[in-house]
Amino acid sequence: MSDKKLKSWQSWLIFGGSMLLVFCMGLVVSALMERRSEVASIFNNRKNPMHGIVAQNQKFESDFPREYETWRATENTDFRSKYMSSEAQDVLEERPNMVILWAGYAFSWEYNSPRGHFHAIDDMRRILRTGAPTSLTDGSNQPGTCWTCKGPDVPRLMEEHGPAEFYKSNWAKWGSEVVNPIGCSDCHDSETMDLHISRTALREAFARRGTDVDKATHNEMRSLVCAQCHVEYYFQDLPETSEHDQYLTFPQDYGFTLEDAEKYYDERNYYDYIHALSKAPILKAQHPGYELSLQGIHGQRGVACADCHMPYTTDGGVKFSDHQIQSPLAKMDRTCLVCHRESEETLRQNVYERQEKCIEVRNRLEEDLAKVHIEAKFAWDKGATEAEMHDVLQLIRKSQWRWDYAVASHGASFHAPQEVIRLMSNGIDYAQEARLQIAKVLARHGYTGDVPMPDISTKAKAQEYIGLDMAGKVEAKEQFLQTIVPQWIAKAKEQGKLLDY
Amino acid sequence: MSDKKLKSWQSWLIFGGSMLLVFCMGLVVSALMERRSEVASIFNNRKNPMHGIVAQNQKFESDFPREYETWRATENTDFRSKYMSSEAQDVLEERPNMVILWAGYAFSWEYNSPRGHFHAIDDMRRILRTGAPTSLTDGSNQPGTCWTCKGPDVPRLMEEHGPAEFYKSNWAKWGSEVVNPIGCSDCHDSETMDLHISRTALREAFARRGTDVDKATHNEMRSLVCAQCHVEYYFQDLPETSEHDQYLTFPQDYGFTLEDAEKYYDERNYYDYIHALSKAPILKAQHPGYELSLQGIHGQRGVACADCHMPYTTDGGVKFSDHQIQSPLAKMDRTCLVCHRESEETLRQNVYERQEKCIEVRNRLEEDLAKVHIEAKFAWDKGATEAEMHDVLQLIRKSQWRWDYAVASHGASFHAPQEVIRLMSNGIDYAQEARLQIAKVLARHGYTGDVPMPDISTKAKAQEYIGLDMAGKVEAKEQFLQTIVPQWIAKAKEQGKLLDY
Repeated sequence: MSDKKLKSWQSWLIFGGSMLLVFCMGLVVSALMERRSEVASIFNNRKNPMHGIVAQNQKFESDFPREYETWRATENTDFRSKYMSSEAQDVLEERPNMVILWAGYAFSWEYNSPRGHFHAIDDMRRILRTGAPTSLTDGSNQPGTCWTCKGPDVPRLMEEHGPAEFYKSNWAKWGSEVVNPIGCSDCHDSETMDLHISRTALREAFARRGTDVDKATHNEMRSLVCAQCHVEYYFQDLPETSEHDQYLTFPQDYGFTLEDAEKYYDERNYYDYIHALSKAPILKAQHPGYELSLQGIHGQRGVACADCHMPYTTDGGVKFSDHQIQSPLAKMDRTCLVCHRESEETLRQNVYERQEKCIEVRNRLEEDLAKVHIEAKFAWDKGATEAEMHDVLQLIRKSQWRWDYAVASHGASFHAPQEVIRLMSNGIDYAQEARLQIAKVLARHGYTGDVPMPDISTKAKAQEYIGLDMAGKVEAKEQFLQTIVPQWIAKAKEQGKLLDY
Repeated sequence: MSDKKLKSWQSWLIFGGSMLLVFCMGLVVSALMERRSEVASIFNNRKNPMHGIVAQNQKFESDFPREYETWRATENTDFRSKYMSSEAQDVLEERPNMVILWAGYAFSWEYNSPRGHFHAIDDMRRILRTGAPTSLTDGSNQPGTCWTCKGPDVPRLMEEHGPAEFYKSNWAKWGSEVVNPIGCSDCHDSETMDLHISRTALREAFARRGTDVDKATHNEMRSLVCAQCHVEYYFQDLPETSEHDQYLTFPQDYGFTLEDAEKYYDERNYYDYIHALSKAPILKAQHPGYELSLQGIHGQRGVACADCHMPYTTDGGVKFSDHQIQSPLAKMDRTCLVCHRESEETLRQNVYERQEKCIEVRNRLEEDLAKVHIEAKFAWDKGATEAEMHDVLQLIRKSQWRWDYAVASHGASFHAPQEVIRLMSNGIDYAQEARLQIAKVLARHGYTGDVPMPDISTKAKAQEYIGLDMAGKVEAKEQFLQTIVPQWIAKAKEQGKLLDY
């Protein structure tokens, strides 16, 4: 080949190679565009356009089959990591001390480890705490407020009746209305499928702090929709009425720490119940998962709840959020490993180690708290006066609030491992200080020995000690489940509010 | 231009461009090679080849000017972050409760926040705890063991006299020998400059667990040289002799947790001192920095001490470790930011938050411990018996061991924030349990009131309360510093063991 020919041949080769490269890049971009357009097409060509609250989750199935199927799978959130109790396991049986801690409050009757969102309605009906109405619309020991987090019928009812009316009605009144479990319209606008806040309590709490929740970013919303329910709250008697309003309120006026909420409650002399043994004015913590996640490094780095509990996944060309909300340890390849480069086993052990340390301190605190309630009762029985017991009761209140706040929030020992132990170590100090003061009170009343401890080694024994008639409660609940609940369901179906699966 | 000419011109352009690219890449590789060869040349062309322990740090200056200069800068480790006391600040003045906790032990005399390695010898002589020898070779209340971590003269003396002899001699005996502060030969083989273990205690502790420390990787060595000193240790009376051996020993036989060390000590009924007030057999924790760093995420991810405390830096073409060992917050651009993508301010606040939570729990525990010692003394004074106090003293021992272990280790509230609070929350539980038992003992002896608390609001008041003659100690120390120390220094210089800076 001549020089010229060689050069010409080289030129063509370079030209051809460049063209091939450009073509391949085109293919890649085209594939990306196709994915986008597939997603866009889902939203632009809905078979069932909707607007407003649509409570029947099944109505979203045909337009959003992937999200619906994974949401439907919350029926089977039976994955359990090393330190999670089995699904729906009887926690009071595992930890009878908790019966003592909740003496005087319905939590001492029954308390189970959680199941998936799909079971929200069923579990609500079955739990002894909601009582056993014998009428279709009345007779529970709980208000309507208890339904608030259980499903998308709630925002529908709030629109129809107003939140105040919804809250203060008897729990049984909404039995034939709240029938669809936590689902689509709880977090999504049914028309645009944008994330939205369907519960007024969060909106109101943010407004009191001067924050407009509607200005939250999309990523913030990926936590805030969860924060509608996974927070500390209480049922407020509104100062502007003289009624028993049971108005759902988040004590976030001063901020999101335990101390912020405590200040809020203390200023109002609020308590959830007077303890049946110690007579302490107890704050029952709910599940401040959102607040505690803000105290840990994942929350502080802007990792949203959905990042780990609803990991992105792909199905064909479509990327979507997995709606089978559960422990991130169930799908570590799509949760932890998206950011962390360690092996699954290493990361899993890191989680377990944090949990073990929290459990150790929790066990101590629960033991101390059970003792202090029993010892306080003993002091009352020996003739202790209100004045002698005043400080003791405040210490018990502080201690139990810390225990409950740390323990009640799902996953907190991973979300904020240092904060959880900080809270509980303060709890230990308060409980033990109370025990010391009780010992001095008892000594002044002539008793210098150890306070005799009852046998509370099983749930049944502990419940008997605090004087519960469990057989009666179980019997009544069974009756309720067999008579009232079927009528609720039938009525809801009749009115088209509940569809078959 | 004809088509042919155009194509030929294009070919030349591509050819020329390629050549330019290859040339530039060559330049880059050449620069890299030059750096390497510069480093290699340092080691292959030493002006002062050495072997064995070379205690005079100045001798390394000409061969290793960068490392030497940065090491020399430990004279000025006066950087302090938000929660670090000022350099050499009187901690007992800040926290008078600590005087009470150490009653019966020389730490109650004087305890200061740390200074840089360069000051190790000077600070050792000045601290009241080492006493005030009036002879050149005898009369301290401490053994030779106390010098062990203070500088490279120590491995030299151990080679000359054997470790056993070195340890059990009076501290004053080595006053004219241990004169060079912590420096090159403590961590480096003077011939190869490889990292090496110069202290037998670490080698022995690893051997007892069946680990050959000489098989450690280079990265492990970048922590292990620190772990020669920044660990929990005690002065053992060897079982095979009947002497007061003061043999430096790491209680690592069962592992590296607090519980592992406690088990080791408990099995030997070991204690560092009997508390002057409570009579509890106290374990004085040293500074288990290595052990606690293994309990935190950085240690668990294999980050070596040197990664953050001796960050890599460059000077001209040479990459070297910064030997100005100090808080990583002093040089965040070369420490935290090497791995983390957040802003300096965010990362700094993350550190402070962890420290704040630990300090909060620490303050509680210190308060509880000061009270329990004072209350125990009160019980003894009221006629409590050994039998009545037995369990109380064991609880105090457990509690104070946890406090000291968590607090004494530099940086632990960052290294292992959850572990530190776990330890202290257990400490709170034990201290408060002891206080409860004391209250019952007192009640049985007819005393049912609160135990009167002395005024221990300042260091001076606390020291007076525990009966210390501080003026005498300060006076004697001053005398020692003016008479004995200058003679030690003169002798060391005369023998060429100490060079001028």
